[in-house]
Amino acid sequence: MNPIEKYNQRAEQINSLLCVGLDADFDKIPERFKILENPQFEFNKYIIDETAQYASAFKINTAFFEARGAAGWNEIKMTTEYLAQKYTDIVTICDAKRADIGNTNTGYVTAIFDDLGFDAITLHPYLGREALAPFLERKDKASIILCRTSNPGAGDLQDLLVNSKPLWQIVAEKVDRQWNADNNCMLVVGGTYPEELKAIREIAPNMTFLVPGIGAQGGDVEATVKAGLNSEKKGMIINSSRGIIFADDPSAAARKLRDEINEYR
Amino acid sequence: MNPIEKYNQRAEQINSLLCVGLDADFDKIPERFKILENPQFEFNKYIIDETAQYASAFKINTAFFEARGAAGWNEIKMTTEYLAQKYTDIVTICDAKRADIGNTNTGYVTAIFDDLGFDAITLHPYLGREALAPFLERKDKASIILCRTSNPGAGDLQDLLVNSKPLWQIVAEKVDRQWNADNNCMLVVGGTYPEELKAIREIAPNMTFLVPGIGAQGGDVEATVKAGLNSEKKGMIINSSRGIIFADDPSAAARKLRDEINEYR
Repeated sequence: MNPIEKYNQRAEQINSLLCVGLDADFDKIPERFKILENPQFEFNKYIIDETAQYASAFKINTAFFEARGAAGWNEIKMTTEYLAQKYTDIVTICDAKRADIGNTNTGYVTAIFDDLGFDAITLHPYLGREALAPFLERKDKASIILCRTSNPGAGDLQDLLVNSKPLWQIVAEKVDRQWNADNNCMLVVGGTYPEELKAIREIAPNMTFLVPGIGAQGGDVEATVKAGLNSEKKGMIINSSRGIIFADDPSAAARKLRDEINEYR
Repeated sequence: MNPIEKYNQRAEQINSLLCVGLDADFDKIPERFKILENPQFEFNKYIIDETAQYASAFKINTAFFEARGAAGWNEIKMTTEYLAQKYTDIVTICDAKRADIGNTNTGYVTAIFDDLGFDAITLHPYLGREALAPFLERKDKASIILCRTSNPGAGDLQDLLVNSKPLWQIVAEKVDRQWNADNNCMLVVGGTYPEELKAIREIAPNMTFLVPGIGAQGGDVEATVKAGLNSEKKGMIINSSRGIIFADDPSAAARKLRDEINEYR
């Protein structure tokens, strides 16, 4: 099944647009996990079991695992295998922010989609559509293109005006009208910029957005939800990482955010 | 030592601007390596020993190793450890094309600079300077920012006009004038676009460029060298991967390209 359809089914079924970000930074996970043989995997497993009933997607950011080398990479795999065994109806996103030239991207396709088995990957747009073909050709997987990112300095390049339109708008238009021919593209639109989110929803009324930046990064839930929903009251995968996984009670934190999102839908 | 100084010393000492790209694609390496316990590392070791006398830099593209999961990641580490033992004066570049938000980039800094010990990394510019701070703050390492890439569709975004200047020109100006405050930045400029290379040399007369695209990708050596040299007849790290590492005699292929580059210097 196309991962976007899979997400919509799950979102409908459990009434949730929540994505839990498994940013299992080794320095920040509790001591009781650090002493285990596979600390990042064991932490992920705990968070997954605590939050799965509220989650329509799980997102892993590769940076926190690569920091531990081959061991960390192996624990990404253990995590995706655990998800594939126990939670087959929850979408898995690899927040790897990759993009190389075409020939080379085949290596990342093998790594992220086939070896690790993720449903979707985040990608930089800078090399253009032709370079991303190995990802886009995978109709069974989803490509999530960085459009307007959540970081404070995102505008450095993304706000540059091209024919009086900011670059993020051009990216949104290109992905919506050209790159998404197989309906397997999404966009990353930061929850820290609700005005841009609203504008991108107008450009791409039917696309699904991965929305990071809620919580620790300062994004406001009400503004984000109101700006980003599509006409079916979906169209957003709203991610929270630190605010849930490092909470004293991750399950309660996930339920609370799921409910808060639903309050504004 | 700053990796750019390290490169210039090596280039001077052995009279070479050549970078050998260790794109050890498992499917393409000879059978005699595939049967070994660490096939990609053993292939890299062979290529390194064959070509080191002509190489001022070695470049590893992570995609080809991630395709083999934790085993591949481990063989990147074995390769950098081998280089650190035997060839300390050759610059090591991790062609990983990373870039996340600031907090998260710290994971990649740990992975690529500290755990794997690379001198330099390639980075996407789309998230802006603020996001890349964890890389840029490392004065002992180099950040190589994608400016004009070598792929056929590079112009999709990179040629968009911002105030009548193409985006790649804006990136070159920003990196040269703002991001490179600590003289630890370089630019990626594809050898397949000599006119753009010449224009970027005019914008950034003193910067060093990583130039892929020679050989298998179709870049012309004469046009590239003439367009990209700085006033000291250096300023370029000219990479060849497939054309050297899959040649019948990699040593001869490296020597030939080194000599061809010098012919036009």
